[in-house]
Amino acid sequence: MPTPKLGVCYYPEHWPEARWALDARMMRAAGLSLVRIGEFAWSRLEPRPGEFDFGWLDRAIATLGEAGLGIVLGTPTATPPRWMLERHPDMLAVDAEGRPRKFGSRRHYCFAHEGYRAEAARIAGLLGERYGRNPHVVAWQIDNEYGCHDTVVSYSDAAARGFRRWLAARYGDVSRLDEAWGNVFWSMEYTAFEEIDPPNLTVTEANPAHTLDYRRFLSDAVVAFNAAQVAALRPHTDAPLSHNYMGRILSFDHFAVGRDLEIATWDSYPLGFLEDRSDQGEDWRRRFARQGDPDFQAFHHDLYRAVGKGRWWVMEQQPGPVNWAPHNPAPLPGMVALWTWEAIAHGAEAVCYFRWRQVPFAQEQMHAGLLRPDAAPAPGLAEARAVADALDDLPETGTAPVGLVVDYQASWVWETERQGAECDYFRLVFDVYRALRCAGLSVDILPPTTRDLSAHALVLAPGLAIWPEPLREALAAHDGIAIAGPRTGAKTDAFRIPEALPPQMPGVDARVTRIETLRDDCPVALAEGGAFRFWREFVEGDAPVLEACADGEPALVGTRERAYLAGWPDDIALDRIVRRAAGAAGLATLALPDGLRVRDRGSVRFVMNYSAEPVSLDGVVPGATGTLPPAGTLRLPRA
Amino acid sequence: MPTPKLGVCYYPEHWPEARWALDARMMRAAGLSLVRIGEFAWSRLEPRPGEFDFGWLDRAIATLGEAGLGIVLGTPTATPPRWMLERHPDMLAVDAEGRPRKFGSRRHYCFAHEGYRAEAARIAGLLGERYGRNPHVVAWQIDNEYGCHDTVVSYSDAAARGFRRWLAARYGDVSRLDEAWGNVFWSMEYTAFEEIDPPNLTVTEANPAHTLDYRRFLSDAVVAFNAAQVAALRPHTDAPLSHNYMGRILSFDHFAVGRDLEIATWDSYPLGFLEDRSDQGEDWRRRFARQGDPDFQAFHHDLYRAVGKGRWWVMEQQPGPVNWAPHNPAPLPGMVALWTWEAIAHGAEAVCYFRWRQVPFAQEQMHAGLLRPDAAPAPGLAEARAVADALDDLPETGTAPVGLVVDYQASWVWETERQGAECDYFRLVFDVYRALRCAGLSVDILPPTTRDLSAHALVLAPGLAIWPEPLREALAAHDGIAIAGPRTGAKTDAFRIPEALPPQMPGVDARVTRIETLRDDCPVALAEGGAFRFWREFVEGDAPVLEACADGEPALVGTRERAYLAGWPDDIALDRIVRRAAGAAGLATLALPDGLRVRDRGSVRFVMNYSAEPVSLDGVVPGATGTLPPAGTLRLPRA
Amino acid sequence: MPTPKLGVCYYPEHWPEARWALDARMMRAAGLSLVRIGEFAWSRLEPRPGEFDFGWLDRAIATLGEAGLGIVLGTPTATPPRWMLERHPDMLAVDAEGRPRKFGSRRHYCFAHEGYRAEAARIAGLLGERYGRNPHVVAWQIDNEYGCHDTVVSYSDAAARGFRRWLAARYGDVSRLDEAWGNVFWSMEYTAFEEIDPPNLTVTEANPAHTLDYRRFLSDAVVAFNAAQVAALRPHTDAPLSHNYMGRILSFDHFAVGRDLEIATWDSYPLGFLEDRSDQGEDWRRRFARQGDPDFQAFHHDLYRAVGKGRWWVMEQQPGPVNWAPHNPAPLPGMVALWTWEAIAHGAEAVCYFRWRQVPFAQEQMHAGLLRPDAAPAPGLAEARAVADALDDLPETGTAPVGLVVDYQASWVWETERQGAECDYFRLVFDVYRALRCAGLSVDILPPTTRDLSAHALVLAPGLAIWPEPLREALAAHDGIAIAGPRTGAKTDAFRIPEALPPQMPGVDARVTRIETLRDDCPVALAEGGAFRFWREFVEGDAPVLEACADGEPALVGTRERAYLAGWPDDIALDRIVRRAAGAAGLATLALPDGLRVRDRGSVRFVMNYSAEPVSLDGVVPGATGTLPPAGTLRLPRA
Ligand SMILES: [Zn+2]
Ligand SMILES: [Zn+2]
Ligand SMILES: [Zn+2]
Repeated sequence: MPTPKLGVCYYPEHWPEARWALDARMMRAAGLSLVRIGEFAWSRLEPRPGEFDFGWLDRAIATLGEAGLGIVLGTPTATPPRWMLERHPDMLAVDAEGRPRKFGSRRHYCFAHEGYRAEAARIAGLLGERYGRNPHVVAWQIDNEYGCHDTVVSYSDAAARGFRRWLAARYGDVSRLDEAWGNVFWSMEYTAFEEIDPPNLTVTEANPAHTLDYRRFLSDAVVAFNAAQVAALRPHTDAPLSHNYMGRILSFDHFAVGRDLEIATWDSYPLGFLEDRSDQGEDWRRRFARQGDPDFQAFHHDLYRAVGKGRWWVMEQQPGPVNWAPHNPAPLPGMVALWTWEAIAHGAEAVCYFRWRQVPFAQEQMHAGLLRPDAAPAPGLAEARAVADALDDLPETGTAPVGLVVDYQASWVWETERQGAECDYFRLVFDVYRALRCAGLSVDILPPTTRDLSAHALVLAPGLAIWPEPLREALAAHDGIAIAGPRTGAKTDAFRIPEALPPQMPGVDARVTRIETLRDDCPVALAEGGAFRFWREFVEGDAPVLEACADGEPALVGTRERAYLAGWPDDIALDRIVRRAAGAAGLATLALPDGLRVRDRGSVRFVMNYSAEPVSLDGVVPGATGTLPPAGTLRLPRA
Repeated sequence: MPTPKLGVCYYPEHWPEARWALDARMMRAAGLSLVRIGEFAWSRLEPRPGEFDFGWLDRAIATLGEAGLGIVLGTPTATPPRWMLERHPDMLAVDAEGRPRKFGSRRHYCFAHEGYRAEAARIAGLLGERYGRNPHVVAWQIDNEYGCHDTVVSYSDAAARGFRRWLAARYGDVSRLDEAWGNVFWSMEYTAFEEIDPPNLTVTEANPAHTLDYRRFLSDAVVAFNAAQVAALRPHTDAPLSHNYMGRILSFDHFAVGRDLEIATWDSYPLGFLEDRSDQGEDWRRRFARQGDPDFQAFHHDLYRAVGKGRWWVMEQQPGPVNWAPHNPAPLPGMVALWTWEAIAHGAEAVCYFRWRQVPFAQEQMHAGLLRPDAAPAPGLAEARAVADALDDLPETGTAPVGLVVDYQASWVWETERQGAECDYFRLVFDVYRALRCAGLSVDILPPTTRDLSAHALVLAPGLAIWPEPLREALAAHDGIAIAGPRTGAKTDAFRIPEALPPQMPGVDARVTRIETLRDDCPVALAEGGAFRFWREFVEGDAPVLEACADGEPALVGTRERAYLAGWPDDIALDRIVRRAAGAAGLATLALPDGLRVRDRGSVRFVMNYSAEPVSLDGVVPGATGTLPPAGTLRLPRA
Repeated sequence: MPTPKLGVCYYPEHWPEARWALDARMMRAAGLSLVRIGEFAWSRLEPRPGEFDFGWLDRAIATLGEAGLGIVLGTPTATPPRWMLERHPDMLAVDAEGRPRKFGSRRHYCFAHEGYRAEAARIAGLLGERYGRNPHVVAWQIDNEYGCHDTVVSYSDAAARGFRRWLAARYGDVSRLDEAWGNVFWSMEYTAFEEIDPPNLTVTEANPAHTLDYRRFLSDAVVAFNAAQVAALRPHTDAPLSHNYMGRILSFDHFAVGRDLEIATWDSYPLGFLEDRSDQGEDWRRRFARQGDPDFQAFHHDLYRAVGKGRWWVMEQQPGPVNWAPHNPAPLPGMVALWTWEAIAHGAEAVCYFRWRQVPFAQEQMHAGLLRPDAAPAPGLAEARAVADALDDLPETGTAPVGLVVDYQASWVWETERQGAECDYFRLVFDVYRALRCAGLSVDILPPTTRDLSAHALVLAPGLAIWPEPLREALAAHDGIAIAGPRTGAKTDAFRIPEALPPQMPGVDARVTRIETLRDDCPVALAEGGAFRFWREFVEGDAPVLEACADGEPALVGTRERAYLAGWPDDIALDRIVRRAAGAAGLATLALPDGLRVRDRGSVRFVMNYSAEPVSLDGVVPGATGTLPPAGTLRLPRA
């Protein structure tokens, strides 16, 4: 495998052309070999409809490319120019309050609008034609951060029309839809697809089957929007196509988008994400305020490795304070390097920083770059340089011993039928991931379409509310250890409780007869310690009881090899369950002190200290001794 | 009095016809003798406008009735079919944000829309014609849960038009309205009724007189909507007419609706209501998470006994976890029975569980039934059966020694002019109710139209912001003990401060010269212990001071027989005030430990343990010994 | 200087004409000599368009004036009558949700609507013609409480049209706007001014330059609205023109409005403001619940003295509980007098109470007056009377030794680009003000247009995000001590980071290279104690380091005379910084116990006790001995 690369995001259109060459030389001097450009530049490429100016981009590509930088060229479809709204006045997304989401920032389009979709394909095709064979262009990025700013769920007229067509295609006859959704329930029956609206602003909650189909339709619209640009680009280029995803966006099926692309990338903002999308509470946020959640990036690295079918990058790496979280502190010195190493440990082909130079105008002027606004080096630059200097060949990423199934559709089910205020699919899956990582285990994330589990000694499938049939079969055939639950198989494809009751798990004779949700201050104790919190199921059946609640109800049932978990374990219980399962799978676990994390890449083990204190490694990580400073990273051969 | 009955809610249209007879037999075997059907089935009765299918309902009634079940037949007007919106596109309610509340769930209509009101009367009349003399139909239910999902307050054009007509009828000339409302205040004077809008989205608060009249108009619209169906049904049936009210809905005058019906019923969801409509704080919610608030159901039992003029049922009794509260735990074993007994102790003619079988589709698929989705018994079934087995003749409910006045209009005054963030009429009244119940006293709730108080040794009228003249006269003539205040008589009918100052209470020479509202952390101590919280009045006059604040200001003034309370007492103060007043009225009180409650029905006393711990009864309840387990109920003769 | 006057707000149109003379006599007997009338009476002056009734106002002015009261006559433009909406249906403001803010209360107009602006000038002119030379009319008030109820920011079509014109005038060519705003950033470039909307409901944040220009435009609209009435009144009267501002309203430039008026007044509601606009937390609110924030009124007194160019009043002084805050307690006895004395200590020419008699109808019926609704004296009356009795000649207000720069535009910058959740300009400035006052220092507030600082030994300019060039020059020339920062000069006029980096402070060689914002639980300790909170900057340059952070980074740089503060100090740090700077400026400071405050007026020192406990003055205030009771005020010669 080639040495991982470092790169940076750059906006030639923001700076005087006379500056480009110097910037390019400085990038190279900093050890960077990739540069992403162009993804917001539509108004400069096509200032008026049909009137093009590619000259500046030709020159920018030449200048950067000739300096030795590989170029990732973005399609600018996240920022349609103002004139686009004259052509397609109804192209804006509409929010849950019924208000159009207007021009003046970015991502101002509804994925379901076919007119805008065609415009996006048009500009992508033109870029492909012009630059598809340009030797400096080493990869393409389509659009930017699908779903960011909550832009997938839209209630526009275009979406309503598309939804009706989608439903007609799915059900053929509206009476089949009525039957599938159970519309008899509250006289919600339809007599024509034209009568059906998006499930919004109803008096009380809409039919969950209605909502789930709408979420599926919206996700399909993202896939189709992306696919239209893929189709426009493909004939013109052999360079890989990519998209840069975000953190904790569950509103569309990333695996489905990823199937049409060669590379998955993501935008990693550890401090911003800790502040604005962690469930771990205020004390956790305080402790990791300058380091970021120690598992959040790791989770997404593994997730996007799966989405990219093995090929993945970090496209935007936070290099200093950002501008958009509730609080925006500076990283602890060393963290920019640590974050980069963490990505590499998980197999990143490249890590690009966002952005080269802090821009002194417009929305992100308070977002740090590798350079300050005055072009002097910002603190991140030296850390990037230090990583670049230390980079060399690394073993293949290989396969991790543990597989964790992640399914976007499951998150839509949990969101649609929350049942308890804290019950969130991502939170559950991420709790499990954290427990695995705290035990020192490396993880592969598995899409729900996985048909073969044989590479993984231990497989976990929490919260998989609707069984993907091939996965159920793979599980039945799996040799290793597998744990599913809670809420696995809780719904049919039509969002109904299965007649034979969940979970219908191969090899486990158990039926969930009822569930309850729990206040945070009302956990249900487990007999061996810890508790179920938030979600708890009552199980019947002949499956042996592996763990019980303190009240005697089964908590974990089945066999060592194939077990079903009847609730949402707290950290204490998850730690025990994960370590036992790992032991049964023949996997060694570690007892890592607070903030220390480990990731194996082939024969190399990376050790990272996310805490703000030095940590002694003696007796903690086999083969390691001494003390790891805050934000320290250690590379050692696996024991 | 006949033995109370048990029943259940059933939806034949949700299940295969072949299953109906078995379900009916199982209901009978469980000790149930009533079944409510039909209230959401409009799309199956009239699939297209004017096209009817009564066949299935004929057969369902026959099957259930012949199995020995008495049928409560619902009019399906809470769920107008989709085609209704083609006929009346403007029938939807409009929320406070100005958004129509759309089709896709239930209760999607504005009470003030006359076209839909006529449609509702039409379907009610047709059902009356067909089933009014059917011997199996033992009662009717009109619509379902008026006001649920906040559906009374609507700002639709239909409501605006109706409001103008209502104002014209009330005031005759717009100058009289200007005068009554005091519109001179901010140049808000009108010159025609057509200029007046509903009081919504004004720059700052609307004139409270404007708001109060709108609340009255909205309440009248509910009464008229119900009356239209009463008028359509009455000619066709002798069976009693009913409606199933909800918990803590103050948006319309239930007494006014109840005057047109024979029976009041309500839908009792103790665990859901504890979570989503209790003021008692998080620790209280934790302690009673699996039992429900120990007084909330009792309050509503007494309330709806008054609304039903003595005849009342529980129409929907929670049988297990529900699906709609922030958290939905399972009841403590025994609570389903305890809740049933509590209703019977308060004189319920019937208690029906909601629902027979958990439905595996649509909005309420996570709502427990007496059967599980797979038709096996759910835990609630055995508890219902146990109650059925223990049921026998009980004495008449009789009259409780304590009367507590409840007035919906008062709640509109408090809501319209809150003055302090925590100042809520229901909360105040319910605080008083809880104090009475903690003292072991049984309560009758009295409507504001009460003209004779002689049956009650002790009468309480807290927060009655506008005096109903007959009640004031009844109070003047009352022989027993009476306490009014705070805020009694604070406003005239036109929402003005009375010229002679409040409270104008017969027999108490006192004037409230000013009031203040208090932060929760700034209570005003009372000389004898406890404090006023939230609301406090300064009183002048010759009435003797019965209790004073620690700062010397009067707190309770008047005589032993007729006293005015100048603030909102905390629990300690309320307990003292209530016990003293009961003593003066010759009523014995009990010192009940936490969670224990008592209700007398004629010569029988019911003792119920709402705590999660066993409670010793020795020396606590006269004539009772030993220990009552959690969720335990005891019946004993009154000492 | 003449003796300060007391007055009251009165609404003859609310009361029977027969009552007016008695009210006037009672006012005089209470020691009042001013009465404000007319400001909400449009519907009585012009009941239908063009149809006038001035008779009642003629008689009211005569009655009040002949009783010896000087009259402040208001223009009624805060309450356009209902018919105005028939003439100008599009005159309403539109809120951030896109909803018109409707008729039914007050302030229902958009400042940018030119049709309504002309109507307002028309009625002002008519009043001027009729009463401009009336000898009883001693002053005019234009409109009422600009910006109250959040009425400056509006997204109406009228505002959008006005904004485009304003932009066209400012930039001439749209390409200059694109360049200034940096619209290239996300392809936000425009090709015509007509394409530009107000920055609202964009997908993510709008360009901050776009938002800042909109804020400037909205502020200019307030200035223009006021100026139109000034122009209409001026030809008819020599009496001073005024407006009554509110507390903590930052939405328009009060200095700019004030330039067109002779007198600034403000409406001081200490208890309401403590509840609804203090940042100091719940414990602070509890401690001062009945006294109000001890510094909030003082700050605004000093602010409006500056806005009024030395001439200022309190136009509405809270006399008892109000009706609009989350909680509305009664003031501690004595506070009405203390609040009045505090105003006088700061140089108020007059203090008027709001209102004379509590009105028994409409929106403010729970707002106390000097009389109760039954016309008996309310507690505030005696306190006003006591102040009146004690009033006599006082020295000129003079100049305070400390100057504090306040700039409305800076608050728009902070709001537009908050960067940290707690980062609010007013909060920062008010923190500094509190520290000064706790050190016993009297303060002059300085507008950003100040060109001469020589009167002030110590000048503070926190948070001044955009340098006003003359002030920067004045600072360069200043002889005394000056401290600026944090965030001073952080932006250019076009909302860009200056190329040479901030702060560009004369005499301080320092560059802010980056900033970070801090969670409340993540302060950055300072070496000498206390900490930076919320906002922290990293500074480079040759300026000496006066204070450092515990981590060694500079915290205060420059010289004793000219220093730049690189963060937001907590109370401990601010106290030290302020005392040291005062010491360097040769100013004595005091160590005042909790709740005690001091204000010097010429040779007289006022000492006020805002705490609820008596405070010993021995050794605390030079020349004072003994104990000051709660709500006590002491006047003594300055030591
Ligand atoms: Zn990004
Ligand atoms: Zn219900
Ligand atoms: Zn006011």
